[in-house]
Amino acid sequence: MGDDERGNQPLDVLHGSLDERVIVNLRGRREYRGTLHGYDHPHLNLVLKNAEEVHNVGTDDETVEKQPFVVIRGDNIVYISP
Amino acid sequence: MGDDERGNQPLDVLHGSLDERVIVNLRGRREYRGTLHGYDHPHLNLVLKNAEEVHNVGTDDETVEKQPFVVIRGDNIVYISP
Amino acid sequence: MGDDERGNQPLDVLHGSLDERVIVNLRGRREYRGTLHGYDHPHLNLVLKNAEEVHNVGTDDETVEKQPFVVIRGDNIVYISP
Amino acid sequence: MGDDERGNQPLDVLHGSLDERVIVNLRGRREYRGTLHGYDHPHLNLVLKNAEEVHNVGTDDETVEKQPFVVIRGDNIVYISP
Amino acid sequence: MGDDERGNQPLDVLHGSLDERVIVNLRGRREYRGTLHGYDHPHLNLVLKNAEEVHNVGTDDETVEKQPFVVIRGDNIVYISP
Amino acid sequence: MGDDERGNQPLDVLHGSLDERVIVNLRGRREYRGTLHGYDHPHLNLVLKNAEEVHNVGTDDETVEKQPFVVIRGDNIVYISP
Amino acid sequence: MGDDERGNQPLDVLHGSLDERVIVNLRGRREYRGTLHGYDHPHLNLVLKNAEEVHNVGTDDETVEKQPFVVIRGDNIVYISP
Repeated sequence: MGDDERGNQPLDVLHGSLDERVIVNLRGRREYRGTLHGYDHPHLNLVLKNAEEVHNVGTDDETVEKQPFVVIRGDNIVYISP
Repeated sequence: MGDDERGNQPLDVLHGSLDERVIVNLRGRREYRGTLHGYDHPHLNLVLKNAEEVHNVGTDDETVEKQPFVVIRGDNIVYISP
Repeated sequence: MGDDERGNQPLDVLHGSLDERVIVNLRGRREYRGTLHGYDHPHLNLVLKNAEEVHNVGTDDETVEKQPFVVIRGDNIVYISP
Repeated sequence: MGDDERGNQPLDVLHGSLDERVIVNLRGRREYRGTLHGYDHPHLNLVLKNAEEVHNVGTDDETVEKQPFVVIRGDNIVYISP
Repeated sequence: MGDDERGNQPLDVLHGSLDERVIVNLRGRREYRGTLHGYDHPHLNLVLKNAEEVHNVGTDDETVEKQPFVVIRGDNIVYISP
Repeated sequence: MGDDERGNQPLDVLHGSLDERVIVNLRGRREYRGTLHGYDHPHLNLVLKNAEEVHNVGTDDETVEKQPFVVIRGDNIVYISP
Repeated sequence: MGDDERGNQPLDVLHGSLDERVIVNLRGRREYRGTLHGYDHPHLNLVLKNAEEVHNVGTDDETVEKQPFVVIRGDNIVYISP
């Protein structure tokens, strides 16, 4: 890998986060927390395990819903935080 | 399949969910529940059987409508939960 | 056709619905009902015959307008129900 | 042309509507009526002649503006009704 | 040029409008009037000379701003009227 | 360069504006003014030097913020005025 | 590198900002500040280290949240300021 596309580029970070807990922030103040189980390229669709869906993040109306498995379309993702 | 794109990547999860009940969450607080009957790649268009369309998910205005068969455009999907 | 992309995938369902009545749901609570006369791939543009355009679906303001023929851009489609 | 992509598919309908009056419905309750003079593929950009632009379609605020010629970007089109 | 893609298709109309005054309507009730100086394909980015930018088109809040030269991204264009 | 894609097409105008002050108008009534230092194709991402970011353009809430260097994603650009 | 695509084009600026603090402005008045650790092309997905997420930028409701690492999807980026 050359200097132009460094080792810490986005896909490397995702790869290094496999089996780790991540926060996935979606458009519309929605957020997922779960264990990263897979992803694809270039769409950045993600698979999370033991996921928690959080609505109205950071407001008084914040609610949490648990889901054992979830496939999230990359389109809706704002950021992923390992 | 190499380590880079693991067995639990998004398409594998969908494939493993064929003939199983799934929840399909769409933009605008709409949700489908049904048996996954097919999908395509890379659009992630889905076919559900014995589907229930849920509007205003999680609010007092939640309503359900039954549809024996439905083709959902991948564009509108936020997540799929097996 | 292999097992990976099953016979009930989205395009097969559309093909099997040719000359049948379908419901086409669009963004913004608009809906079309009509006989499916054709489609293209991968855009999923549709042609409906003897179509009814329904606005404000499921509300008190629901209105219906008849159109003998209509080409619907796939971009705006949320789902197609055969 | 095979059975898979039938003669009444979207482009055929457009081609058959050349020099005919069509209704072009756009996002945001805007509508054009005019004579179809041309189109391109796959964008479905259209050329209308003797066009009428209708705003606030079907409301009390409906207004009409005449334009001898207009090129409409396919992106904004919801449906075309021959 | 065959009959399938007629001489009056969108790009031909643009080409024929070079050095002519055109109206360019953008999303969000914004409008440009100017002399068409160039365009590209397939994005339909446009170059206008002696342009007038009109906000809140057709309302009491309509305002006009003059710009000697402007490059408009095709993405935002609803229609071009020669 | 042929007559079909004239010398005054969009990229030529950008190229001719290198090292010149430009106004870059973004979606959502945001505007940048700065010296055009570079761009790419076909995304039209821009680099501005000695930039001023203007919010709420043309309203009483207009505010200006200075930035020595900025990379603007082409997606959000409505127009560029040299 | 030719004169047509100058040394100060967008990717060069990003490359020159590796290991430097940058401001990343997102749609919806959200902003990140952090050390640029990587990016990809052509999506402009970014990796930031020691990041601060700022909501409601420039308003009385501005809030800051720290994240040691974050992958930001290029889609949502308005501008990057080195």
